[in-house]
Amino acid sequence: MINRHIRTKIMHRIVEHSGTIYFGGVTADDSSLDMKGQTKQICKKIDDLLANAGSSKEKLLTAMIFISDFSQKERMNEAWLEWLSGDLLPTRATIGVADLGKDCLVEVIVSAALS
Amino acid sequence: MINRHIRTKIMHRIVEHSGTIYFGGVTADDSSLDMKGQTKQICKKIDDLLANAGSSKEKLLTAMIFISDFSQKERMNEAWLEWLSGDLLPTRATIGVADLGKDCLVEVIVSAALS
Amino acid sequence: MINRHIRTKIMHRIVEHSGTIYFGGVTADDSSLDMKGQTKQICKKIDDLLANAGSSKEKLLTAMIFISDFSQKERMNEAWLEWLSGDLLPTRATIGVADLGKDCLVEVIVSAALS
Repeated sequence: MINRHIRTKIMHRIVEHSGTIYFGGVTADDSSLDMKGQTKQICKKIDDLLANAGSSKEKLLTAMIFISDFSQKERMNEAWLEWLSGDLLPTRATIGVADLGKDCLVEVIVSAALS
Repeated sequence: MINRHIRTKIMHRIVEHSGTIYFGGVTADDSSLDMKGQTKQICKKIDDLLANAGSSKEKLLTAMIFISDFSQKERMNEAWLEWLSGDLLPTRATIGVADLGKDCLVEVIVSAALS
Repeated sequence: MINRHIRTKIMHRIVEHSGTIYFGGVTADDSSLDMKGQTKQICKKIDDLLANAGSSKEKLLTAMIFISDFSQKERMNEAWLEWLSGDLLPTRATIGVADLGKDCLVEVIVSAALS
């Protein structure tokens, strides 16, 4: 069975199947923030999405982080590590890409376990 | 058990394991088409791949959409939403990237449930 | 239950859940190598990570390959196909991106089955 939550115009933000929860790409609502600020806002949004799906950051499996200015990776890392204690860290890849939308510096795709 | 289908020189287009079906990146065969045309062709190819794997678009879980010109995202969306009714939408992320190959405007990676 | 292995400052290189093994992005240690050389080194590192997770290249499910110079895709392919026999090939997508870090030409994210 597939459980879908939070439908937008173009996606469901959460899709759960067979104990694994998939999330759509998350960006910051306030694109005037700098890299660390946008990342902090994304982490907060992921917390809320995880709660909505009946999971939590303790159950994160993977993260793909796309950033539009690779030179600012360390600022993204700061927010990431303030959010996640070391023993909870999921797998991760950080990819520097051409364009995430106007003023969007970072977009994150995570997956998590339901339990 | 791992079930693989449709072997090309560099990949299997479909790999199924434990009820989840993974697909290789799908691009349009006709790269002379515009963004909407390429996306429509990709959607048709994904339909065929899903059928080949014993699944269908009703069971899509995730989509990652890479586009080489972010300013044309809305044209991609048009084809996407003509293909998928709202209640079936998978999770999604759209990433603007540097290069998908000559004249290739869009590449899509999906996953789906087997049942 | 989630099993995590090989913790770095920013991630666990391996996370296993429900029979599926997820890996963080793998890059070459020696960024002075050319595209084929970096890819060969990545394949060797993935072999080691798979062994650490109790799996092997016979059980690869998916690969996402990010390259910072798309014109060198064929050189990456050469290393990939020397590493994997045709019947083992996972799904794959190759995406040309803007920046993977200084002199980094290729980064690979794979997933695999535990058994």
